[in-house]
Amino acid sequence: MTTGRLFGLGVGPGDPDLITLKALKLLKAADVVAYPTGKADGGNARAAVAPHINGKQELLPLLYPTTAGPLADAPSYPQLMRDFYEATSQEIADRLEAGKDVALICLGDPFFYGSYMYWHARLAERFETVVVPGVSSVMAAPIAMDRPLCHRSDVVTVLPATLPEDELEARLSAADVAVIMKLGRTFPKVRRTLDRLGLLDRAVYVERASMDGERILPVRNVEPDETDYFSVIIIPCDAPG
Amino acid sequence: MTTGRLFGLGVGPGDPDLITLKALKLLKAADVVAYPTGKADGGNARAAVAPHINGKQELLPLLYPTTAGPLADAPSYPQLMRDFYEATSQEIADRLEAGKDVALICLGDPFFYGSYMYWHARLAERFETVVVPGVSSVMAAPIAMDRPLCHRSDVVTVLPATLPEDELEARLSAADVAVIMKLGRTFPKVRRTLDRLGLLDRAVYVERASMDGERILPVRNVEPDETDYFSVIIIPCDAPG
Repeated sequence: MTTGRLFGLGVGPGDPDLITLKALKLLKAADVVAYPTGKADGGNARAAVAPHINGKQELLPLLYPTTAGPLADAPSYPQLMRDFYEATSQEIADRLEAGKDVALICLGDPFFYGSYMYWHARLAERFETVVVPGVSSVMAAPIAMDRPLCHRSDVVTVLPATLPEDELEARLSAADVAVIMKLGRTFPKVRRTLDRLGLLDRAVYVERASMDGERILPVRNVEPDETDYFSVIIIPCDAPG
Repeated sequence: MTTGRLFGLGVGPGDPDLITLKALKLLKAADVVAYPTGKADGGNARAAVAPHINGKQELLPLLYPTTAGPLADAPSYPQLMRDFYEATSQEIADRLEAGKDVALICLGDPFFYGSYMYWHARLAERFETVVVPGVSSVMAAPIAMDRPLCHRSDVVTVLPATLPEDELEARLSAADVAVIMKLGRTFPKVRRTLDRLGLLDRAVYVERASMDGERILPVRNVEPDETDYFSVIIIPCDAPG
């Protein structure tokens, strides 16, 4: 019996209509639809593909052992995540061995900070894979703002908010156009840094770009306890002429 | 009579299957399909949507006054481009005034170095617009390489190769993960800079990611006179574990 194929599908920023045709075709063709999630209901990843899956596919939630809560700082966190990727890779491998094609969905793009890459690293040597790029929130957020991100000779710096505060400051002070990813608990640190650098007036907070509940507001007006992991801060270029 | 709407559609890196469902729906619904091109045959932008357009739509090529040849260095170049955007904006406005919906297609993403933004700046105040994000070559190229671009706390720097050589060197020397866009004539300058920084062994040249004629090779092995504008150089992260 031939083994199944693993499809690593970038499904875009969250709006089910922002999936590509290529990802949609593979999603519909798969026997199993696997999605990483921190929530029992499947969260945003499942919502992004909900209109596209049929009742005949096996749904395989890959439930993270932790959300971005305080546990992420625990010394055991890296090992906890490795154990999670190992165990869930085995669940996926079982289906592939049985000849089933598995679509593993990934919000945004699989190889641009996407968690898909950790399963790919464990499975791509043993099984055939097809990886499909997706629209990143780096592109979706400026469009939600109706503001071009960059043009001509602009240099764009994409920074995870999880950087130490001094490095965040050094990188942002050297940047023209910037996109700050992986917000949430890290918001107060980022806001302080932007304030020190005099960037608060240029920085825009975009939450859940393209999803239900999209919000766009100046970073100055964001309540730190109302931020969401699915958000970015954009420091765009000046308007093109 | 109501005026038409302007659709600014990111159609992705070139493979017609990498268009999003949202862009596809608007493309099919449009009365006019406009596409910027340097070639009489419509080039890559038209090829990216060719399977999706029907024979009833007006095709409106927006023919650039120049390609990326030596003319780009002429003092008159900025004015030449402004004149081009003004004249073609008028062509588009004529159709919108006549109540026709116009889809203006853009390879990659409209607000991420996309030329769509120059028409948007001229038309969005007068007409209703819908802008749709697209998959950028920043995402498509790492997938063509089968290598993750970035993960965890990586900082990603996106640089246009049109930067002056000293600035290119300064920016690259400070970067972890980098994507160099807008290659072509600028390739020899970029190669020299990578060589000086000891980055030649990590840098990968990806030409026409997802399109016919896709080529992936170490920058070291690229013949400078065989490079293409639709190419990027990727300096990816180390493999994730």
